[in-house]
Amino acid sequence: MESTFTLIACTGRAFYLGEGATLRIVNTFGTQVVDAWAFNANDSAEFMSMEHTRVHAPSPIPVKGTVFRSNKRQPMLEFIHDTSPGDHDWFFAACDQVRYEILGHTDAHANCSDNLKNAMAETGNPVTHVPCPLNLFENAPLLSGDTGIYPPTSRPGDSVELAALADLIVCLSACPQDMADTNGSDRLPKDVEVTIIR
Amino acid sequence: MESTFTLIACTGRAFYLGEGATLRIVNTFGTQVVDAWAFNANDSAEFMSMEHTRVHAPSPIPVKGTVFRSNKRQPMLEFIHDTSPGDHDWFFAACDQVRYEILGHTDAHANCSDNLKNAMAETGNPVTHVPCPLNLFENAPLLSGDTGIYPPTSRPGDSVELAALADLIVCLSACPQDMADTNGSDRLPKDVEVTIIR
Repeated sequence: MESTFTLIACTGRAFYLGEGATLRIVNTFGTQVVDAWAFNANDSAEFMSMEHTRVHAPSPIPVKGTVFRSNKRQPMLEFIHDTSPGDHDWFFAACDQVRYEILGHTDAHANCSDNLKNAMAETGNPVTHVPCPLNLFENAPLLSGDTGIYPPTSRPGDSVELAALADLIVCLSACPQDMADTNGSDRLPKDVEVTIIR
Repeated sequence: MESTFTLIACTGRAFYLGEGATLRIVNTFGTQVVDAWAFNANDSAEFMSMEHTRVHAPSPIPVKGTVFRSNKRQPMLEFIHDTSPGDHDWFFAACDQVRYEILGHTDAHANCSDNLKNAMAETGNPVTHVPCPLNLFENAPLLSGDTGIYPPTSRPGDSVELAALADLIVCLSACPQDMADTNGSDRLPKDVEVTIIR
């Protein structure tokens, strides 16, 4: 059984993903970064942790086959499919209001950290800590010695799939970054399509 | 004014480090990894965050000149001096009981995560979240594409210095890892010397 929704540009959504289900994220326009988090559905203090995942990972960057682990080192999601060139990030924090202020935008700006907090609160699982996200389609070539973030290398229709290895609340945020090239050189955040396959 | 203490192998200690003070850590025997954390002295929910630091950092690995920022992107510590070859890690989680169980040690094992929690509780600033530490002297050459951890490249007497850019509670843990080469190929955790210079 499949259910699909459009994750609107600049917004976040949290939802239940039961063990055995698969999450597909389609980068409809090719250039949209999606910040992803996962929490134990029964204990939101247990979250998908990039720093714990890396200790046990087969590769220094997230690739097909990577098992994302929690801060208790328990398997949460497995990266099972990727049609993109494979440029995803797990080194950089989610954007937040202060990030935009540092870039010169002093008024309120939509951001992935608030998207996470608001979406989790709506599910009845409020969180205060914002874990380092899995930044799908984010082109941050840190391994080449470069700390910059560049336009995604993904193409329209490229998709990734993650399989749930536990009962989870997953949160996705279509990154609102429009003051840097994170979401493409047009700096125009866009929608993505999300499908849950049970 | 200087005060010096020996951080005993396998243990942690938390202490106040006021803005303007300098912290020196001497790797007495050359092979000891030291996990380091910092918290806002007035709000332990604000902590030194490797993923926020990297966004604003001049280098993909921690080097002299790196300003370590909090999860609110505020400057906390500056890396001002390093006599070692410069192999320090900021990608990998602190060891914990589960880490040792995965390695085959099912009984209780000293670990950096518990060292942090216990040391912070002793200062009256209990924490539940264990941030990704700055793993001083940890030789984890992730940038070369290798996810392993190797014996430190530091030599006896090598030291690092960090300057406090805010009023902080700093916690250090002399890593108890004795089931891998993290603390040298003899797998024997050792003492280090810590000096606070005001």
